[in-house]
Amino acid sequence: MTMTPFFLSRSLDNVREKVPLVHSITNYVTVNDCANALLACGASPIMSDEPDDVTDITSICDGLVINIGTLNSRSIEAMHVAGARAVQLGNPIVLDPVGAGASALRTKTASELFDELPVTVVRGNMSEVKALAGAASATRGVDVGADDMTTEENLVVSAEFVRDLAAKSGSIVAVTGAIDIVSDGRFSFAVRNGTPIMSKMTGAGCMLTCIAAAYVAANPENRTEAVVAAVANEGVAGQIAQSRMAKADGNGSFRTYLLDALFTMTGDMLERGARVEEL
Amino acid sequence: MTMTPFFLSRSLDNVREKVPLVHSITNYVTVNDCANALLACGASPIMSDEPDDVTDITSICDGLVINIGTLNSRSIEAMHVAGARAVQLGNPIVLDPVGAGASALRTKTASELFDELPVTVVRGNMSEVKALAGAASATRGVDVGADDMTTEENLVVSAEFVRDLAAKSGSIVAVTGAIDIVSDGRFSFAVRNGTPIMSKMTGAGCMLTCIAAAYVAANPENRTEAVVAAVANEGVAGQIAQSRMAKADGNGSFRTYLLDALFTMTGDMLERGARVEEL
Amino acid sequence: MTMTPFFLSRSLDNVREKVPLVHSITNYVTVNDCANALLACGASPIMSDEPDDVTDITSICDGLVINIGTLNSRSIEAMHVAGARAVQLGNPIVLDPVGAGASALRTKTASELFDELPVTVVRGNMSEVKALAGAASATRGVDVGADDMTTEENLVVSAEFVRDLAAKSGSIVAVTGAIDIVSDGRFSFAVRNGTPIMSKMTGAGCMLTCIAAAYVAANPENRTEAVVAAVANEGVAGQIAQSRMAKADGNGSFRTYLLDALFTMTGDMLERGARVEEL
Repeated sequence: MTMTPFFLSRSLDNVREKVPLVHSITNYVTVNDCANALLACGASPIMSDEPDDVTDITSICDGLVINIGTLNSRSIEAMHVAGARAVQLGNPIVLDPVGAGASALRTKTASELFDELPVTVVRGNMSEVKALAGAASATRGVDVGADDMTTEENLVVSAEFVRDLAAKSGSIVAVTGAIDIVSDGRFSFAVRNGTPIMSKMTGAGCMLTCIAAAYVAANPENRTEAVVAAVANEGVAGQIAQSRMAKADGNGSFRTYLLDALFTMTGDMLERGARVEEL
Repeated sequence: MTMTPFFLSRSLDNVREKVPLVHSITNYVTVNDCANALLACGASPIMSDEPDDVTDITSICDGLVINIGTLNSRSIEAMHVAGARAVQLGNPIVLDPVGAGASALRTKTASELFDELPVTVVRGNMSEVKALAGAASATRGVDVGADDMTTEENLVVSAEFVRDLAAKSGSIVAVTGAIDIVSDGRFSFAVRNGTPIMSKMTGAGCMLTCIAAAYVAANPENRTEAVVAAVANEGVAGQIAQSRMAKADGNGSFRTYLLDALFTMTGDMLERGARVEEL
Repeated sequence: MTMTPFFLSRSLDNVREKVPLVHSITNYVTVNDCANALLACGASPIMSDEPDDVTDITSICDGLVINIGTLNSRSIEAMHVAGARAVQLGNPIVLDPVGAGASALRTKTASELFDELPVTVVRGNMSEVKALAGAASATRGVDVGADDMTTEENLVVSAEFVRDLAAKSGSIVAVTGAIDIVSDGRFSFAVRNGTPIMSKMTGAGCMLTCIAAAYVAANPENRTEAVVAAVANEGVAGQIAQSRMAKADGNGSFRTYLLDALFTMTGDMLERGARVEEL
């Protein structure tokens, strides 16, 4: 892939210009952060998980997020109904398999959605994505297992797994961690942004999933680049947030600073801060 | 209406003195902000949306909020049950028709509740309130549509719509936006407080709905004035929050500052900051 | 009880070292704060309230929180299922009877769980714990009633009630308020930390419940001491947060500072700040 110059800033600008409306069926733990992250990056959020409501809501939106954290029988039905409607409309679908591998219901739900829907983007940690792919995973609840963490040492092997899953599924796969990997099956990228404290606040992953939906909705012609830009956007925002941390600050302040950085991010800041490498 | 002097500060003081207990059936996106907003303005929150629980909870409370965001079949039933109990008790009911016009279920649910219950206050954006009134609306999810925004140019026409709906329904109607309009059918007010970033954080509207419930519960003899005071309170708080914004701050910090401003607001600050005009 | 020296710091260090995974079935009002509080104190959170999901989730965890706020028929079933699984595994269970006494459903649900499960820790305010114990309580929604507040004047009587309940039930009982009381039926402690503004943000109690679960999970040999340490940890964190409050700050900033203080807390800070007295 010859990346077009300024694809990061252009992807971001398109979100701010088009203000995509994103329907998120997502967990109640981090839903507030998801809504504020969408607003911060220039999109507009709406949440609904009632089967009788989601067809209408998906219909007025530009993209759909399905995040299976705190799933229940009602919301699982809503995921299938909303997904089917998004497919009819040709709208992008982003799947976050939160906790896949941690319970049979989560693994089954994520897998069925992944099989049934032409998912545009999968965003998860390596343990979750491995579980989704039917591979052995070392998940630890909603956290990545130690054996699944992407490092410089296993980057080639990890990227190969991500590329294969993308190629086989037709989805763009974004596996985030200390090093983020994004692949569409043909082109693969490593993103080396972010900061360790992002794993010590709840919701950084869920927020990125929503942001990715906004980016692909606003950049229909360059979806792979858009996902890379979304991943870099959150990572650079994390680093800016980290740079504001005072001695007494912890994950409370970091959460606030992260939203702030997403809110104030410009294309220029993103271009300067992003560390994207094609693999 | 001859507004009594100091009605703003008196309305606020009554909330802090009486500490009304407010039962909110509300969406899970902004529920934490709603609870903290109630505490900040001097009231006390309790949330419950299980039909088997809400009769008891409503019974110990001084007011009821029904916010239809993220509604589901269970919570819709709870809204009707709790509403009926509030009517028996003579407690004020505040309805927030989040997303009315965006889905058939939301429009239907809001309309049925509005028909069935002697709603004390309706609080929404213009698109939602138009949908509730059965008028054509230009809603955009949970945001106001561009054609529905209240401006200085359309203020007279907008206020007429609000006044008519209030007169017809018997409810106090508060339509918030760049300019807020409050009417009880006889007297109408414009409130020119607030700041644009309030639409870039999730929950400012939901928080106001809860605050309005606290204000009418604590000011049973002056409900129209109390709603005007609640609207001004949130708007002035928004301006104070805005004044604290540093260059690196975004909607994360703004959210924190907004709660802070609600928390530290005194009657004197409210009187000095409020820009209320009788129409 | 001869308290071992440094039991506070050792309890805290064990949480940070073992990173217990805590499954919380909890209300959607404060669930985000609960997740961030667990991360801040060194544990790892996972939430699930679907009966078909909780057996698996509880199975991979080190402790279980059952918080009955915003309970519903589905989550109540999940509480019983998850509780039964935790018992099979010998995992600690912490029960937070939010709003017990405020509705028949809450009182019944809390009481049935308390009867059915060998609850390791009960954490609530005095009104809730009295309702759980079948005693007369003066609850005010989810707040303690005025007649139930622990003061220096009624401390002996209050502590006796807590000690008796602990002795009768076999649970460690932690009743928090202006003065916190912890008893295992043999040994009882008063903790005089914390600050009044903690009752003006939503979630301080729910956060402590989760923290207590992390502490008992990481300190299986010294559970009573661990609960005392958890209570002191939150109280000292509250005081540190209070000390950061500027003039314009309110419950928004306090919430952020509280998480920050939990995050930055060291064993040494906890030892120096804790005011624990054996009764």
